[in-house]
Amino acid sequence: MVYIKYVDLNSDLGEGFASYKMGMDEEVLGVVTSANIACGWHGGDPTLMMKTAKLAKENQVAIGAHPAYPDLLGFGRRNLDISPGEAKAYVIYQVGAMDAFARAEGLELQHVKLHGAFYNTAMEDEDLARAVIEACQSINPNLVHLALSGSKFFDIARSMGAKVSQEVFADRAYNDDKSLVSRKIEGSVITDEEEAIARTIRMVKEGLVRTINGKDIEIVADSICVHGDNPKALAFVKKIRQALREENIGLRALGKNL
Amino acid sequence: MVYIKYVDLNSDLGEGFASYKMGMDEEVLGVVTSANIACGWHGGDPTLMMKTAKLAKENQVAIGAHPAYPDLLGFGRRNLDISPGEAKAYVIYQVGAMDAFARAEGLELQHVKLHGAFYNTAMEDEDLARAVIEACQSINPNLVHLALSGSKFFDIARSMGAKVSQEVFADRAYNDDKSLVSRKIEGSVITDEEEAIARTIRMVKEGLVRTINGKDIEIVADSICVHGDNPKALAFVKKIRQALREENIGLRALGKNL
Amino acid sequence: MVYIKYVDLNSDLGEGFASYKMGMDEEVLGVVTSANIACGWHGGDPTLMMKTAKLAKENQVAIGAHPAYPDLLGFGRRNLDISPGEAKAYVIYQVGAMDAFARAEGLELQHVKLHGAFYNTAMEDEDLARAVIEACQSINPNLVHLALSGSKFFDIARSMGAKVSQEVFADRAYNDDKSLVSRKIEGSVITDEEEAIARTIRMVKEGLVRTINGKDIEIVADSICVHGDNPKALAFVKKIRQALREENIGLRALGKNL
Amino acid sequence: MVYIKYVDLNSDLGEGFASYKMGMDEEVLGVVTSANIACGWHGGDPTLMMKTAKLAKENQVAIGAHPAYPDLLGFGRRNLDISPGEAKAYVIYQVGAMDAFARAEGLELQHVKLHGAFYNTAMEDEDLARAVIEACQSINPNLVHLALSGSKFFDIARSMGAKVSQEVFADRAYNDDKSLVSRKIEGSVITDEEEAIARTIRMVKEGLVRTINGKDIEIVADSICVHGDNPKALAFVKKIRQALREENIGLRALGKNL
Repeated sequence: MVYIKYVDLNSDLGEGFASYKMGMDEEVLGVVTSANIACGWHGGDPTLMMKTAKLAKENQVAIGAHPAYPDLLGFGRRNLDISPGEAKAYVIYQVGAMDAFARAEGLELQHVKLHGAFYNTAMEDEDLARAVIEACQSINPNLVHLALSGSKFFDIARSMGAKVSQEVFADRAYNDDKSLVSRKIEGSVITDEEEAIARTIRMVKEGLVRTINGKDIEIVADSICVHGDNPKALAFVKKIRQALREENIGLRALGKNL
Repeated sequence: MVYIKYVDLNSDLGEGFASYKMGMDEEVLGVVTSANIACGWHGGDPTLMMKTAKLAKENQVAIGAHPAYPDLLGFGRRNLDISPGEAKAYVIYQVGAMDAFARAEGLELQHVKLHGAFYNTAMEDEDLARAVIEACQSINPNLVHLALSGSKFFDIARSMGAKVSQEVFADRAYNDDKSLVSRKIEGSVITDEEEAIARTIRMVKEGLVRTINGKDIEIVADSICVHGDNPKALAFVKKIRQALREENIGLRALGKNL
Repeated sequence: MVYIKYVDLNSDLGEGFASYKMGMDEEVLGVVTSANIACGWHGGDPTLMMKTAKLAKENQVAIGAHPAYPDLLGFGRRNLDISPGEAKAYVIYQVGAMDAFARAEGLELQHVKLHGAFYNTAMEDEDLARAVIEACQSINPNLVHLALSGSKFFDIARSMGAKVSQEVFADRAYNDDKSLVSRKIEGSVITDEEEAIARTIRMVKEGLVRTINGKDIEIVADSICVHGDNPKALAFVKKIRQALREENIGLRALGKNL
Repeated sequence: MVYIKYVDLNSDLGEGFASYKMGMDEEVLGVVTSANIACGWHGGDPTLMMKTAKLAKENQVAIGAHPAYPDLLGFGRRNLDISPGEAKAYVIYQVGAMDAFARAEGLELQHVKLHGAFYNTAMEDEDLARAVIEACQSINPNLVHLALSGSKFFDIARSMGAKVSQEVFADRAYNDDKSLVSRKIEGSVITDEEEAIARTIRMVKEGLVRTINGKDIEIVADSICVHGDNPKALAFVKKIRQALREENIGLRALGKNL
């Protein structure tokens, strides 16, 4: 099989906590190529990190750290005004912990993807982005950042000499500046599965997406962010995989596509 | 200067939290050779870990991780019945985080010393000891364990092929089986400084200590545990250093003495 | 309908956390008479406490606090060596918080039932029991304690002039001294539903239970502890209710049975 | 002695945590009339809350709750985007806990003062203010809110029929709209003690303050916020007390001045 191109599928994993379950981790690990594993600050705990790293290895899925604000009570979804210095320390701490679980499985940590409100803020806040990138480079310059396609974070990472991949969202509408349309706005989520898949294929294959204003803009899709919260979400991921296959697009962990 | 022998001085550091100060970290770093840095579970936080690692480097003090039970409210001093599997995951998490701060300073993490109740329990509980040692070996087989001299933990680490150093306490009384006399018992703490120093020198130089029962027993002193909570404690450490110097005993980080 | 006797059905509720669900709270509130609501230390959080108090009120279920050790990571199931002074402060804190949510619904907090390892330890540790009872009496002397039937805790509560109810377990085997057979021992859980129900009826009606050694002992059943973790557990509770009804035994919140 | 007026002196207390000390609580309790006691979310813990309530009682200082964002790592000083529903639940939880410690001392909780970033945000955010006030009213309608003088929070509390006192700051500069000059701006802190005291007396006696723009504006001073972090701060409080006495202004807990 000769693929015309490769793309990565990434998903958040290991987001349960203590006795609490979340997501269909085992099933998701069967269909993605990169796992963003929660580091205990918004979800996840050491025991689950250890288990998820092991499961990822068994499924030959590349391991990434998914650091968050210290906000277990809000699942990391609420903005917290941390300083760049705090951001740097928080990222070193969480990425270091996840890195150790990867090493314990004989693997190298592939990437870092921020979680929730930390992700949203750092994609556009230059000081925070810089602090996060510095943190990762200080640990291991080979770590790949997973950034929102077209974000300031991506540009900054590039300018700092860091490895960085750009991700797109299958089911989200885009503004003309490549930012995601806020969930508060109608039409922010693409509910029609066929449409979402067609858009995804177009982003990966042609590097184009139609914005909420009807304009075609360029967008880079190194990785597609997918979810495995429930059986329907999982079935959707399988449809994306099938559509990519039909288009002769291969799946490969993001670290191999750089 | 030719020393007849080398010994390490280790101290717990970075045990403040958020806005809270604890200990005289900067002064202590001027007099010890190995720093056990708190990892955020009983004290310490990412910002302080980053700062303490940097300070340790500036003072050429070797960096170690000081993992604890998850008990910030009790400063890690209360026993918590965790399973060996939990112990393993907790140690990988905390040591991994500390390791990342060491790497961010361009240093290698030298050692791991458990904190408080976790230390006390693991020194004598075979399953817990084994889990802790496995955890560290899975991350980095060069990590040195810092164990109570003569403890089960030491024997187990040896039998598992792990690097391990034995520490003694300058101001604590010993039982005939090399365990520390419980603080609840009178005479458990050596309050006379001259006596404490003489005992320490004897442990390091002759490998002997007189127990609370008046019996001389053999004891290995690779490292001496010292404290820097207050000016008096710090002055005591300086006296120990002076006494060691007079006995022609050099100070060197534990990793170099193996 | 004239009942020959009343009994309470109690269940642990509100044990989710943040985005995590646990148990079938809404369904369980339709079948029990007293709710032990988690206070955020092993599970539960303020938002869920507020919601669960409201739901309990709508279902006319009496509200109790379910305080735990500070161990979210272990769901309060691991023993933690806290002092009586700490136990007192921890109980005042958690019961006070729950009490406020009850008052916000215009209700009075009916009872306090300890959770997990805190429950197990305090039922037999005199100092801890005394500290917990003092804590509750210092807040509100009308608070009812829910204790293991025949435990030291019950005797101590009585001797201190506190209100206290005794609970039994439908699906657990008993030792001759009224303690529960450890889950590590075979036969500790009564898996046959019919047998469990027959035993429960006998405890409530006759005040007798056959121990694991085949001996009939006296036992007081003011309340029956039931679970609603899954549909099967819920169906079992409904069978117990049906059996009680057939025996002419009424259901009533424990505070009304004293 | 006949006073021309009464004013309250309030201070944040019980802000240590676990083994960590903060502030000169015992000394401060000798010079203030109302204590804002930390509730464990930014500082403080149950054991310290119990101890501080007892100390306050011994010093005849009125007890208030000092609820915060859930941000121990940031001492509650960083803004966290919580919803009004979350704010309500968080306040009920923390105030309920503190209320229980007051009752355990046979006292009534007098007031509620928000901490740090929660205070700053809620003083001007109408939805958050409303949620906080509703929370307190649902527990006990007699609770007094301690608000920034001239804030939206004050107006909203009044409009909702809640009891509310207005506080001023001795050492802070004011904008023309009665808001505090941001600490980032030069001149935001009045460093000259004599000037700070003169300004304080003027606020209390005449209800006037000169803003950073040199304009005299009206301001209500029901309470003066003071600090006891260090000996110098404490000496300053004593000077304020002396100056008030010389002006024939009495000191009385805020609840008595309404």
